[in-house]
Amino acid sequence: MGEFELLARIRERLPAAGPRIHLGSGDDAAVTVPGGATATSVDALVDGVHFRREDATPAQIGHKALATALSDLAAMGAEPGEAYVVLGVPADYGEDECLELLDGMLALASVTDTDLAGGDLTRAAQLFLAITVVGHAPDAEALIHRAGARVGDALVITDEIGAAAAGLLPDAPAELRARQLEPQPRLGAGRALALAGATAMIDLSDGLGGDARHLAESSGVALRIDAGAIPFAPGSKESMAAAGRDPWELLGGGEDYELLASLPPEQLEAATEAVRVAEGIALTKIGEAVAGSGVEIRLPGGRLVEPGGFDQLA
Amino acid sequence: MGEFELLARIRERLPAAGPRIHLGSGDDAAVTVPGGATATSVDALVDGVHFRREDATPAQIGHKALATALSDLAAMGAEPGEAYVVLGVPADYGEDECLELLDGMLALASVTDTDLAGGDLTRAAQLFLAITVVGHAPDAEALIHRAGARVGDALVITDEIGAAAAGLLPDAPAELRARQLEPQPRLGAGRALALAGATAMIDLSDGLGGDARHLAESSGVALRIDAGAIPFAPGSKESMAAAGRDPWELLGGGEDYELLASLPPEQLEAATEAVRVAEGIALTKIGEAVAGSGVEIRLPGGRLVEPGGFDQLA
Repeated sequence: MGEFELLARIRERLPAAGPRIHLGSGDDAAVTVPGGATATSVDALVDGVHFRREDATPAQIGHKALATALSDLAAMGAEPGEAYVVLGVPADYGEDECLELLDGMLALASVTDTDLAGGDLTRAAQLFLAITVVGHAPDAEALIHRAGARVGDALVITDEIGAAAAGLLPDAPAELRARQLEPQPRLGAGRALALAGATAMIDLSDGLGGDARHLAESSGVALRIDAGAIPFAPGSKESMAAAGRDPWELLGGGEDYELLASLPPEQLEAATEAVRVAEGIALTKIGEAVAGSGVEIRLPGGRLVEPGGFDQLA
Repeated sequence: MGEFELLARIRERLPAAGPRIHLGSGDDAAVTVPGGATATSVDALVDGVHFRREDATPAQIGHKALATALSDLAAMGAEPGEAYVVLGVPADYGEDECLELLDGMLALASVTDTDLAGGDLTRAAQLFLAITVVGHAPDAEALIHRAGARVGDALVITDEIGAAAAGLLPDAPAELRARQLEPQPRLGAGRALALAGATAMIDLSDGLGGDARHLAESSGVALRIDAGAIPFAPGSKESMAAAGRDPWELLGGGEDYELLASLPPEQLEAATEAVRVAEGIALTKIGEAVAGSGVEIRLPGGRLVEPGGFDQLA
């Protein structure tokens, strides 16, 4: 593979740049005119650490890399703008696989109105991606941080969780497996929640338990979660039980990329309707913010659990 | 090494964020309010491909990674703003080495007024870095592209070249070796050239010959270069000769990170003075843009050469 030849083939595939891009891929830097505030996030994905080459198609790897990066913008309530992609390519990864990976990324970029505005390509010992995404908002105050939850706020979650973690089980149903391999960034829901008055927001990459702890610590509140109210994906708890695992381990299962947000209880109804209209998914109240610190998850029956980790590559 | 512990130690080292940063490292994304146009560039550096761990200190690796990224902003005439850093860490690379690498980066960030606004840390098979830098300008027109050189323009170069390539020779003097390991992004010179009317600009990462070709192709002109006018670093040609290499191979030697620019000849004097004031270095006319295509380098004596590659990791 010649780097310049592959770059040329990549550039051929890029669609025309959107109106914010004044100068796209191929110069020393891309030029944009943001207007307002920007939210910028970087994510690295490494073969054997974040995914396994042999367990996903190149298109799925490309999709998931961009999806997880865009999920951070969703969690800010930002509108997606530009993506910059670094691809580290091992000697046994072919040019066609690189292009298929890019196509998976471009398909999601197109759906989410994200411009692939630049990148870099390098030889590497293992396949890796580093994705930078830039999102936009009218002003800095329109973007939702992890800090900001207030005592009395309702704690809500989008759609369902547990599918991505259960999808890693050896005999996982295809539907759960698909949610592990092709997560959807909740960009519409994130903007809807921001507009509906969310006080704090985070995307579920590490798992509900861990990410709730991040939100609680940043905000200086405690979060009380009713496990019975958590919307688990159909089949996820059953798959865990069938594999001889405790279904509640899913509380520590990551990679669902749903949004966890706090908001004043009086905004709950309007926020639920806004998320339904924006993204066609449910918003569910699973708990509330109270004075104190830490996260308390109460199982049906009353037992309290501290959600632990879940081996992502089990 | 625990990722969270190392991240905490890294955050302790970060200086207070600059005025453009509304939300720094630690949330889902960094929030900035750019105001005007932005130039964004990403660069990957991989151990064994772009550098060798055993040939440089961690601080030098960190410095060079950020320097090469900032050099792309210099070549746009942009003011440096934010940097986002992905670090892939192999099992045998210690926490102290990671922090030393970061310190090398932070020292350059401080000097150049760049905010380290976010990043990601991951396990990897080999040490790698992916750096995203964002630069700023009052408007998109203030940023200089590779395209834009016009027939009749003077072709100029900052400071001296050849040191970085000669610095790779086994018996290279310490001074040349230092310029290979610790390049300086020409940010002041880049802004001065942009203000002084540069029509096109590129940084010399691949070598004068190759980068001149990029500028010529993008601009749709031919470039005629007088090799006798090129300011080679003292000792660089001598080191090549002593190693039994043709000194003119330096025309294809990369990693000097000086700037190559075109500008109307009547601007030459003002630009030279502006670069001297901004960065204390010389600006030298080495040729001109003429009608046609390609790059022609004329050696003293009249022989024409096509600059070839130079083995960067010889």
